[in-house]
Amino acid sequence: MTIKAFGAVAADQPLGPLNISRRAPSAHDIQIAIDFCGVCHSDLHTVRSEWAGTLYPCVPGHEIVGRVTAVGEHVTKFKIGDLVGVGCIVDSCKQCADCDDNLENYCDHMIGTYNAPTTDAPGHTLGGYAEQIVVHERYVLRIRHPQTQLAAVAPLLCAGITTYSPLRHWNVGPGKKVGIVGIGGLGHMGIKLAHAMGAYVVAFTTSESKRDAAKALGADDVVISKNADEVAKHAQSFDLIVNTVAAPHDLDALLSLLKRDGTMTLVGAPATNHPSPDVFNLIMKRRTLAGSMIGGILETQEMLDFCAKNNIVSDIELIRADEINTAYERMLKGDVKYRFVIDNATLTR
Amino acid sequence: MTIKAFGAVAADQPLGPLNISRRAPSAHDIQIAIDFCGVCHSDLHTVRSEWAGTLYPCVPGHEIVGRVTAVGEHVTKFKIGDLVGVGCIVDSCKQCADCDDNLENYCDHMIGTYNAPTTDAPGHTLGGYAEQIVVHERYVLRIRHPQTQLAAVAPLLCAGITTYSPLRHWNVGPGKKVGIVGIGGLGHMGIKLAHAMGAYVVAFTTSESKRDAAKALGADDVVISKNADEVAKHAQSFDLIVNTVAAPHDLDALLSLLKRDGTMTLVGAPATNHPSPDVFNLIMKRRTLAGSMIGGILETQEMLDFCAKNNIVSDIELIRADEINTAYERMLKGDVKYRFVIDNATLTR
Repeated sequence: MTIKAFGAVAADQPLGPLNISRRAPSAHDIQIAIDFCGVCHSDLHTVRSEWAGTLYPCVPGHEIVGRVTAVGEHVTKFKIGDLVGVGCIVDSCKQCADCDDNLENYCDHMIGTYNAPTTDAPGHTLGGYAEQIVVHERYVLRIRHPQTQLAAVAPLLCAGITTYSPLRHWNVGPGKKVGIVGIGGLGHMGIKLAHAMGAYVVAFTTSESKRDAAKALGADDVVISKNADEVAKHAQSFDLIVNTVAAPHDLDALLSLLKRDGTMTLVGAPATNHPSPDVFNLIMKRRTLAGSMIGGILETQEMLDFCAKNNIVSDIELIRADEINTAYERMLKGDVKYRFVIDNATLTR
Repeated sequence: MTIKAFGAVAADQPLGPLNISRRAPSAHDIQIAIDFCGVCHSDLHTVRSEWAGTLYPCVPGHEIVGRVTAVGEHVTKFKIGDLVGVGCIVDSCKQCADCDDNLENYCDHMIGTYNAPTTDAPGHTLGGYAEQIVVHERYVLRIRHPQTQLAAVAPLLCAGITTYSPLRHWNVGPGKKVGIVGIGGLGHMGIKLAHAMGAYVVAFTTSESKRDAAKALGADDVVISKNADEVAKHAQSFDLIVNTVAAPHDLDALLSLLKRDGTMTLVGAPATNHPSPDVFNLIMKRRTLAGSMIGGILETQEMLDFCAKNNIVSDIELIRADEINTAYERMLKGDVKYRFVIDNATLTR
């Protein structure tokens, strides 16, 4: 089936309308009419081949929400008309220890929603800047938010789960003190989620202008990272810091804010590494520096249900598909509060 | 009381005989006649002020074993004649969360066995290259090994606990695969301990010549770190890697050997930092890079008892006190299997 999409044909080309094909749903597949798709910084990195290895045509988008329009014969979990989501993962090996543990995100053969190998045409996966997508039922999420919130739910599928997973893995809850570094697409979700989990939340930002916004999102305190006095007040006090900043920066100033056995987890990957962290900073308080990547499917469903129950969505700016190139430029300047979401109906009108 | 010791009066001077004083035991103190004292690389760093801040005269030594010769009036735990040990810690605040958790090693006011502030003359602590030491009972360990093994027990007080603590903290036991990087004073203890805990142990060394020795210590497999093929065989397979190497080196080759959720903990601190680890290596498998510093007193007692029960001691070369300068030179070349221990009786004859 040929459908409308939006993507790029080369690294140095802007995104524009494309016709792509989707497979007919097989026994375990769900066919989804995409209503909205969030815009992640990874989309831009991939479209422009900034991480190398991009295959063209490239159709990005892995924060997908929509309605089921067809189901394969063996599908029992979903029916036509259900509100559903698809995140960063559309397939995995289904038989390794990671898949068995419902952590398909760490499977060595995890297939990303775009730019990953597939037997479907054109040989690599094409993402959510499109009218439709067909995905194995294992990787489809149920959405329990009201339909009116659907556009603002889309970013939960990447920005939401990427911050929710480390917060849960490192046991955030009442009595815990959590730092969220960077108040962008990921960070603004991190603040909302950690706050809803009952933690004391401190947001770190380089922009004085974001102080009030961070408090409005749920931060109990806000630290302007370049003010050493403000930072020092929090020495040795954090159980967990979720660091969403992908640009290389000094990790030691943040590591020294962890209490004994505290963890800083990186969820952003800079193109070049951060300055090397001081080993004494780790040894002296048995601190850990960790990484975390999106989350598993079971955990993503848990996150969506947690957000529905706690009335959490992303703060978004809804755009037309043909505004995507401008949106990328604004995203590069950090000029978005806090996530662009494409109204996929604009692909066809 | 004035006693004989061995130490240095300046950073550029060799160690030689010194007379120092010890306090009379107060209510909670234990006075110990030191039989043997292990020689740690930290001793050399401190004597030569390589970490800066060394106070002179400097008497190093924090792998101390001996016999109780007097006890304060409130001491009930030990009696004259008991075999005891003192490690890296002789005092702490006794009231912080770390002390409450029996992790005095992470107390902000932990007092090291040498070169730390004290009200005793000369104003800083003096270590175990001496006839005697007087220590608060909280920081004194009971030794249950046979007296004939006493010299070989000494290194357990630093090298032993420094490797035991992370092995226990990260739950090493049967079914776990553990890497020990570096086969020196710390590493040879790490191999013995991890093996005794029932783990599958892989030793990493740069020296082909240490292959057989590592197997004799208890390693199930030995990897020569510079042989990329040998290293690659172990990709994504370790639960824990205890890295004892204090010289800056590539952490990524080792981090990539951790399975999902695996940890590499650093127990050596290089004078300059390691090359910065690749963030993707942490993120892709939720790996952690951690540090660990010696261990708490309760845990040190547990380690000593574990070693007594499993007949574990250090492999040592016993030396006279006046051989210490030569021993330092040999230690710098890695020419010791695996720990020098001073026979403190030689201080007086």
